[in-house]
Amino acid sequence: MTALEKQGAAAQAAARVLALASTAQKNQALEAIAQALSAQEDTLLQANAADLAAAQAAGTRPALLDRLALNPERVASMAQGVRQVAALPDPTATAGRSFTQPNGLRISRRRVPLGVVGMIYEARPNVTVDAAALCLKSGNACILRGGKEAFRSNQAAVELMRGALEAAGLPQDCVSLVQDTSRDSAQELMHLDQYLDVLIPRGGAGLIRAVAKEASVPVIRTGEGVCHVYVDSSADLDMAARILYNAKCSRPSVCNAAECVVVHREAAEGFFQKALPLLDQNQVELRADPEALALLGSRAHPALEEDWDREYGDYILAVKTAASFEEAVAFINAHSSGHSECIVTESYRNAQAFLDQIDAAAVYVNASTRFTDGGQFGLGAEIGISTQKMHARGPMGLEELTSWKYVVYGSGQVRE
Amino acid sequence: MTALEKQGAAAQAAARVLALASTAQKNQALEAIAQALSAQEDTLLQANAADLAAAQAAGTRPALLDRLALNPERVASMAQGVRQVAALPDPTATAGRSFTQPNGLRISRRRVPLGVVGMIYEARPNVTVDAAALCLKSGNACILRGGKEAFRSNQAAVELMRGALEAAGLPQDCVSLVQDTSRDSAQELMHLDQYLDVLIPRGGAGLIRAVAKEASVPVIRTGEGVCHVYVDSSADLDMAARILYNAKCSRPSVCNAAECVVVHREAAEGFFQKALPLLDQNQVELRADPEALALLGSRAHPALEEDWDREYGDYILAVKTAASFEEAVAFINAHSSGHSECIVTESYRNAQAFLDQIDAAAVYVNASTRFTDGGQFGLGAEIGISTQKMHARGPMGLEELTSWKYVVYGSGQVRE
Repeated sequence: MTALEKQGAAAQAAARVLALASTAQKNQALEAIAQALSAQEDTLLQANAADLAAAQAAGTRPALLDRLALNPERVASMAQGVRQVAALPDPTATAGRSFTQPNGLRISRRRVPLGVVGMIYEARPNVTVDAAALCLKSGNACILRGGKEAFRSNQAAVELMRGALEAAGLPQDCVSLVQDTSRDSAQELMHLDQYLDVLIPRGGAGLIRAVAKEASVPVIRTGEGVCHVYVDSSADLDMAARILYNAKCSRPSVCNAAECVVVHREAAEGFFQKALPLLDQNQVELRADPEALALLGSRAHPALEEDWDREYGDYILAVKTAASFEEAVAFINAHSSGHSECIVTESYRNAQAFLDQIDAAAVYVNASTRFTDGGQFGLGAEIGISTQKMHARGPMGLEELTSWKYVVYGSGQVRE
Repeated sequence: MTALEKQGAAAQAAARVLALASTAQKNQALEAIAQALSAQEDTLLQANAADLAAAQAAGTRPALLDRLALNPERVASMAQGVRQVAALPDPTATAGRSFTQPNGLRISRRRVPLGVVGMIYEARPNVTVDAAALCLKSGNACILRGGKEAFRSNQAAVELMRGALEAAGLPQDCVSLVQDTSRDSAQELMHLDQYLDVLIPRGGAGLIRAVAKEASVPVIRTGEGVCHVYVDSSADLDMAARILYNAKCSRPSVCNAAECVVVHREAAEGFFQKALPLLDQNQVELRADPEALALLGSRAHPALEEDWDREYGDYILAVKTAASFEEAVAFINAHSSGHSECIVTESYRNAQAFLDQIDAAAVYVNASTRFTDGGQFGLGAEIGISTQKMHARGPMGLEELTSWKYVVYGSGQVRE
């Protein structure tokens, strides 16, 4: 057995114990984790400081350093997040469909944990605690493989969580960290079929596509966000400009940020007049098709074909004109990552047609794509935003970390 | 583009039209299919006769010939099945969770089709019509790849369905058959990521495992049935014998049939006395562990290690003794395919512990595993029985052929 296979077997054994734990016991473990985050804050911050020093020495860019950095406020916020998860309903405690057959068989559907959840993610130590808390609450063991830049921080966070689990009478192996942060361990994790029930990659589009293509373990793709705002010919142009500005600029690094505006030819000139002053506040770089370029002049660069599929994560916006509603819908369905798509329109017909025809996890009329998240959609917390159709779509909360089983009470029934 | 890529693109285009079709229109198409099955029965039976003749000439074994054979009763039963699907509720017409956020955003979850469903299956022409009907009703286009023995029958069935679709005003490409029945086409289908939303293999365990391991398209594993009946020390032995006999012998070729009986050491001798006379009626071959062998004598053969993981599909039964309830549970969890598992017991504690601890799609107390199917579980019809935890578990009906999207109605909201 390899080290990772041993870790998988230990997680599977722990998952079988955790699946039978009561909601109260799982909540105790979560509270113990929240307390340990406060009590062992110094250890965690020291480990993080070592990660940060190494990353700085390696010339890591400031945006990544910021995501990597912990401080007392961020640790407090992690603890608060864990307590929020504890306060959510236990998804395995909710009753499913239940009925009695004419032959007297009592059949019901019971929500059960998936089992062992693998996570592959990049350099955000808060994800380590968030993901573990959501897995714990839903009764799943987890095997976490964070980015190498955050290894010391993740190790410290996982150690304190394992201690808290033990204190709460649950197996430590409910949460574990992959010790090897090389590509080899990611590869091995993708094929750990015997022990992993699902693998959730979280990070850049490249990582996610590679995992989805390569893995033999079932994968949930999350967080690829090539989102569009479509400005229809009938749009309220002030509203359209406000929505685009919010969707692009309020937080460009996240997956529900817009990457491309599609403008109906008839609305283009008026829309640009409204939108440019807002986009200029953040010096948004525009990459436009020829028709938009003719209107935007030196304010924009020509878009390349690849710009239509890029998740910039930055103050860059692709600009496409469309000759018709139908052309806009076809363009969006061809280039969307299936995350969040928005139409700004005053046309009832086009609003409904957009909602019907666009194939994405969340489709909006006259509102910013930035609303797609677990909190806004009433899930309380999320482990990621699924852009696939199988199993989960859109923000994944606790329920999306479960499956079910049919439980049948008989009294000797046999089938004719 | 390869022939299969063209077929995929055509199915995807058809799926986008079908997704917007009304329930009434989909039901019209189903009724047209049912009528075409009657009207074109001769064509279908002639094609089937040619398949049968070729299969006989190739020395196909009788059990397979029987599955391949159509006759007027079977065609009538296929038409009846299609009408039953038409009578089921449209899963995409049911309302999901719906709520209004404090900022006035109206958010609801709408069930939508998966898109394009691929099916790989063996030589049963009735599956061609069943699967197409379920896909159609749930708004999915399907690409069917049946076994080569049934190619002429499948071709005739698909042609009449395509005609019926056209007559009902829906695209013919909602249903299509893979024309190449070689291994190459199965391989290509497993990697047709751009066009297929899900691939459902249906058939022997070998096929299903190969597809699950190899495919980059998301897969739903169905129909692997290594099911156990566990006879607890407190079991009513008459009931246990009846249940085992039903689970093993009522239809040994199906996936919910039992392949192995696990008997508590204390119940073994008494249980065999009750069960053998029943099993003898079908000359069931027994493959037993040493402890059972000591009791069964020449009635049984020694089991090999591989017998504990075999899906015989025949009048063969593996027999295992267990020294304790815990040993029985561990054995079943180690060898179960996750389909259907049964305990026969009079112990309340062991009944509940079995339901909690056994990891399978359906877990039974004191009833035959043979009840696991869509009709018995209230789904009306099924496209297969999922033995995985992701997306669907147990009998898959129309709802399991759908995903959802979040639909958001705004009035200019942006996120702070």
